[in-house]
Amino acid sequence: MSEKPRKLSNSEISERLGGLTGWTENHQKLHRQIEFADFAEAFGFMASVALVAERMNHHPEWSNVWNRVSIDLSTHDVDGISELDFALAEAINKLAPA
Amino acid sequence: MSEKPRKLSNSEISERLGGLTGWTENHQKLHRQIEFADFAEAFGFMASVALVAERMNHHPEWSNVWNRVSIDLSTHDVDGISELDFALAEAINKLAPA
Repeated sequence: MSEKPRKLSNSEISERLGGLTGWTENHQKLHRQIEFADFAEAFGFMASVALVAERMNHHPEWSNVWNRVSIDLSTHDVDGISELDFALAEAINKLAPA
Repeated sequence: MSEKPRKLSNSEISERLGGLTGWTENHQKLHRQIEFADFAEAFGFMASVALVAERMNHHPEWSNVWNRVSIDLSTHDVDGISELDFALAEAINKLAPA
């Protein structure tokens, strides 16, 4: 990244969450849980997200139990949520089932 | 699977854990945490495990934060640990760095 990330304020986070389907704020992290038909679909989704995250050099904290994937996004360098997290959340939404 | 899994007793679990590098028992689940050089290595490992798990039709509960992967194995049908979990743990160890 050419610019250092900046920690977003609570009101900036609320405003951005308004336009972002499926995500909530939880303890200074963006959170979304997604359910799939089965493990293969869930992990296929994770593989797609992994490639995007690697390309962005910004990675999720996430867990998977069979058909469920739970994702938390935050920016370590700012100890909170930055635009990077919203960019990754939007990219994840494009890969998630409608 | 041709046979229904059977719940292993605590002493059976302890005995089998003796021969299994890296795993502990935690709240009726087999647990292992593995650290990699970076996210790409961690997720590459997860992709390999996902294929093995799908082939066994026995799936881990797991989470990933950048270079760390945390894995819990249990058998829902027996509400505890079965031979299936040890079989998957052994398969995972073959894929994990030495």
